[in-house]
Amino acid sequence: MAEVSVIMGSVSDYPIMAEAVKFLEEMGITYEVSALSAHRTPELVMEFASKASNEGVKVIIAGAGGAAHLPGVIAAYTVLPVIGVPIKSSNSVDGWDSILSILQMPSGIPVATVALNGAKNAAILAAQILSVGNPALFQKMTDFKISLKEKVKQDNQKLQQSIKNQ
Amino acid sequence: MAEVSVIMGSVSDYPIMAEAVKFLEEMGITYEVSALSAHRTPELVMEFASKASNEGVKVIIAGAGGAAHLPGVIAAYTVLPVIGVPIKSSNSVDGWDSILSILQMPSGIPVATVALNGAKNAAILAAQILSVGNPALFQKMTDFKISLKEKVKQDNQKLQQSIKNQ
Amino acid sequence: MAEVSVIMGSVSDYPIMAEAVKFLEEMGITYEVSALSAHRTPELVMEFASKASNEGVKVIIAGAGGAAHLPGVIAAYTVLPVIGVPIKSSNSVDGWDSILSILQMPSGIPVATVALNGAKNAAILAAQILSVGNPALFQKMTDFKISLKEKVKQDNQKLQQSIKNQ
Amino acid sequence: MAEVSVIMGSVSDYPIMAEAVKFLEEMGITYEVSALSAHRTPELVMEFASKASNEGVKVIIAGAGGAAHLPGVIAAYTVLPVIGVPIKSSNSVDGWDSILSILQMPSGIPVATVALNGAKNAAILAAQILSVGNPALFQKMTDFKISLKEKVKQDNQKLQQSIKNQ
Amino acid sequence: MAEVSVIMGSVSDYPIMAEAVKFLEEMGITYEVSALSAHRTPELVMEFASKASNEGVKVIIAGAGGAAHLPGVIAAYTVLPVIGVPIKSSNSVDGWDSILSILQMPSGIPVATVALNGAKNAAILAAQILSVGNPALFQKMTDFKISLKEKVKQDNQKLQQSIKNQ
Amino acid sequence: MAEVSVIMGSVSDYPIMAEAVKFLEEMGITYEVSALSAHRTPELVMEFASKASNEGVKVIIAGAGGAAHLPGVIAAYTVLPVIGVPIKSSNSVDGWDSILSILQMPSGIPVATVALNGAKNAAILAAQILSVGNPALFQKMTDFKISLKEKVKQDNQKLQQSIKNQ
Amino acid sequence: MAEVSVIMGSVSDYPIMAEAVKFLEEMGITYEVSALSAHRTPELVMEFASKASNEGVKVIIAGAGGAAHLPGVIAAYTVLPVIGVPIKSSNSVDGWDSILSILQMPSGIPVATVALNGAKNAAILAAQILSVGNPALFQKMTDFKISLKEKVKQDNQKLQQSIKNQ
Amino acid sequence: MAEVSVIMGSVSDYPIMAEAVKFLEEMGITYEVSALSAHRTPELVMEFASKASNEGVKVIIAGAGGAAHLPGVIAAYTVLPVIGVPIKSSNSVDGWDSILSILQMPSGIPVATVALNGAKNAAILAAQILSVGNPALFQKMTDFKISLKEKVKQDNQKLQQSIKNQ
Repeated sequence: MAEVSVIMGSVSDYPIMAEAVKFLEEMGITYEVSALSAHRTPELVMEFASKASNEGVKVIIAGAGGAAHLPGVIAAYTVLPVIGVPIKSSNSVDGWDSILSILQMPSGIPVATVALNGAKNAAILAAQILSVGNPALFQKMTDFKISLKEKVKQDNQKLQQSIKNQ
Repeated sequence: MAEVSVIMGSVSDYPIMAEAVKFLEEMGITYEVSALSAHRTPELVMEFASKASNEGVKVIIAGAGGAAHLPGVIAAYTVLPVIGVPIKSSNSVDGWDSILSILQMPSGIPVATVALNGAKNAAILAAQILSVGNPALFQKMTDFKISLKEKVKQDNQKLQQSIKNQ
Repeated sequence: MAEVSVIMGSVSDYPIMAEAVKFLEEMGITYEVSALSAHRTPELVMEFASKASNEGVKVIIAGAGGAAHLPGVIAAYTVLPVIGVPIKSSNSVDGWDSILSILQMPSGIPVATVALNGAKNAAILAAQILSVGNPALFQKMTDFKISLKEKVKQDNQKLQQSIKNQ
Repeated sequence: MAEVSVIMGSVSDYPIMAEAVKFLEEMGITYEVSALSAHRTPELVMEFASKASNEGVKVIIAGAGGAAHLPGVIAAYTVLPVIGVPIKSSNSVDGWDSILSILQMPSGIPVATVALNGAKNAAILAAQILSVGNPALFQKMTDFKISLKEKVKQDNQKLQQSIKNQ
Repeated sequence: MAEVSVIMGSVSDYPIMAEAVKFLEEMGITYEVSALSAHRTPELVMEFASKASNEGVKVIIAGAGGAAHLPGVIAAYTVLPVIGVPIKSSNSVDGWDSILSILQMPSGIPVATVALNGAKNAAILAAQILSVGNPALFQKMTDFKISLKEKVKQDNQKLQQSIKNQ
Repeated sequence: MAEVSVIMGSVSDYPIMAEAVKFLEEMGITYEVSALSAHRTPELVMEFASKASNEGVKVIIAGAGGAAHLPGVIAAYTVLPVIGVPIKSSNSVDGWDSILSILQMPSGIPVATVALNGAKNAAILAAQILSVGNPALFQKMTDFKISLKEKVKQDNQKLQQSIKNQ
Repeated sequence: MAEVSVIMGSVSDYPIMAEAVKFLEEMGITYEVSALSAHRTPELVMEFASKASNEGVKVIIAGAGGAAHLPGVIAAYTVLPVIGVPIKSSNSVDGWDSILSILQMPSGIPVATVALNGAKNAAILAAQILSVGNPALFQKMTDFKISLKEKVKQDNQKLQQSIKNQ
Repeated sequence: MAEVSVIMGSVSDYPIMAEAVKFLEEMGITYEVSALSAHRTPELVMEFASKASNEGVKVIIAGAGGAAHLPGVIAAYTVLPVIGVPIKSSNSVDGWDSILSILQMPSGIPVATVALNGAKNAAILAAQILSVGNPALFQKMTDFKISLKEKVKQDNQKLQQSIKNQ
């Protein structure tokens, strides 16, 4: 059983979506990965989305490029939170197509959209959602946030040192 | 049995899509109309698209606004030609969202996209497609094209007359 | 104690954000409402965001227009899920400014962005997040989804009836 | 006699348009190819478009970049369905110029527009149009659609296998 | 015989294009006006453009909206300078479609594009072109430029006076 | 004495603008070249523009990138026709900045704008303007137009031959 | 003698620019107002900008719409800080033209750009610049900032009260 | 004590922001440099911005990419002039996100925005602001402006020489 299901429209999206997988791994969150197309395998996507909740999935992360219907199509079949990752694929119109196709969902069927190619943020958001009822994970996420802070502080000190040394 | 099936994402799209219906009516092409949402009634859309060919439909015209997935979702379930009409709905990002969501379909699953709010052109395109194997309809379309020409000529003469009379 | 905190950058955003409040009310989800500016009252926003989790808030919905920093600034101070609502305010550059200011958050600090003026969808997303660990709410959301379906079916029947009657 | 005529604004568009040719070849659809400019050889384009129907052409695929007038100019001279392929050429304004020049045709003269650089989809759409009155081709297109599905399934299995093996 | 030929894609463009006519009238430049569609009456546009030079036309002003092919199609048939006026028509994508369709002409066939709805500037540009070999007109244009200056000075004085009087 | 003055905002624009120079050279049109900045050397630009007409210049071609004020600033000081070439320079916002800065001139002061990086078309337009009162040049331009046609025909034949030979 | 000079491209911009004037008045900062066009009265703008510093002006606020060259042209003639206000005028391409024409200045000649129609913010920025060497004004600006905070707090309390009372 | 504080959202922005540092160095203006994130280290940014004025800072230059909140967040905590530098980072939506996030600040809290990646111009603007009450620096800036002019003149002469020599 996986808490988070990571799905993408094509295996060619995996280099981007792998960042989500990596973060879930680091947080110890169980996950499953699949690459199914809303347009080429609509029945599989429908089946996937309809069953997800019963199979114990809590959050779905869906990444797609171009006319990126995958996150919205999944959201149509489930009341689980769906996080959408717009992907800047080749032949995309600068990423605008995937952003708008995912973001501008009609009233009733939201998709939680993150930044262009923002797969890692999708995983962080999934973790934040899971941590709502999970104090241990909430603490982990708090620690992660602190680690981001520490990294910035260290980078800043190095930068300032290197400028002084010029 | 209808040759052309006109479908839209919401009844609120009907004022735009009615232009398609009107043209089909004028050309004597049989049609059916429905308003089904790819996101709120995905099973009905799937059913609609899967059965269309068997029920004798030859061309599907699908109009939608915002993250306009309807034409693409239908195209996923049928090999009938699907004509997409981007609609500039309220809260649309100036129509860009519906244009890009319909136009930028991935390889394998095309949608024949027409201009923003271009429902009449969608019906004309449907008639052109049907006329490929239908000499009588082809002649009707040729006559329609001539009527467009005549209208422009008359308008031009009136304009020139009104300028002379100033 | 409120489960969802609805915040907006200015009281002038309330007509849009009221749709979120209304949905939460309907679902029986406790909420609180405030209008604080990330730029005019940064200390209050910081205080709000820092304390939210301790005060029992589970999800934050933040709406803002123009250079819409509010959702991101809140996300900087909490690990609670933050849902951002881009608002098309006057003097906005067609809504693009609020969309991009909210969506394009850097790695580490996601904001779950919904459609332009999509306050109702923000509330639905909040309810979906809360329902992850709440079977009763999950059932309510499932029922809500069914009610959307029924509404579409009825509207469709009325449309088809009215076309037949022409 | 060719069923589909593939035309492009410049020989430099051929690397993109070749994908259309390849698909027609695979489907056993007869075709002809030409590279004529709406602006440099307008008389040839007029002649081409005016004669196409009489010479047995059923569908025209026209690709062009920049201020991409070719599909629209051809549509002006024929009632055959014209499929437009926007091409992202050098000095293009990110492809927006070709998309909008092809898509936004005035009422009366539609062009069936496909995605940026979507030449293969143009050929698929042409085949779908031809299959309206051609059960054998309809079956081929159905088989092609199934092959797309199978490809996705296989890719998905490989991806999942490779993740498990990590 | 007319020195400047003003043409537009539809009589509905006349309210915009009338500003060009008015300026030519004021400068005593002979002109003719027509409304012909590049898509509905392509043969008439071809005839118009092919004959213009022989009939004594020196400059052509062509206005159009949407996928605005008219200026480019005319330029394809003549070596006379063609000035293009992008028009923001209804269902336009905010005017971007007409701007890009007119501006982004391929190498070899320029169109001198002016601002969105800039019909008056098109006429001024036409007058500037005619004045290249016409000292009397050159002087008139110089006087016109001075009159613009004077108008600004007077407006400025009135503004400053009204502010002082507050 | 030069008939056409080619000016650009920076010497770094010369690789683009050289195409204009080359065409003028080929047509035997006299020209001069300078690189002056509207922002860094405003007095020189003013002097240049104010004197151009008296020094025998008939048409000015001005290329610039970014906030491309050069063509408009020159047009402010002369009634000669000014042709603007938007240049996609580094740090440009995809060329939109130079296009809009040149195209959207206020009423009274037109700039004849050509395509992004369209320096050759600017020179062709300049030649067309000069040919208005110059039958010999008009003939040359007509011949040039024919040569474009011939080139397309030859390219087309080669393409068709190469496809046949596959 | 005025510390801040407020200039705009046309008297029609005054309704927007009046907000700047009002703020300067409130802060007790001396100002002068003029409406001069960079394109219609370039010599006056040059004279204005060249003399400003000698006449005691410390900061210039320049507002303009369309191809908004005024702020950049002024910046070319002075080393005083120039604040640019993009104005969304009629026939503007949604304000993008004025934003990009003012913002994207080349290296060496900055313009401090504020939001679309942001005349009040321009005046606030001017006051902040003047307060760098003026402790009394710095205190006034600090007080102004506090007043913004208080206004938000009061509005927030009223909103919360009105919601409670529902 | 530093007169100008240069801050950026990430050390990865330093290659762009170094141009600002270099110019300040050349002008003999004291400066400090830091890389702090508005989202990862909000408390440090708040502390930085709140203290800046007391520590003698006169102008702040803040650069950031994506949803670039840093300049606005700093402006929220200080009345010092804040200059914002939009940075085109990886995964940016062509720089539009950083431009709009910085430029479109709400009424009351301006950010003086410069061109995309325009760090040098930010430093020049900072120097212009400081020179308001500093005649020696004002003279230096005047000299710098003259040096820009001289550079253009020399480049122009070289260009013209190289063309003559062809």
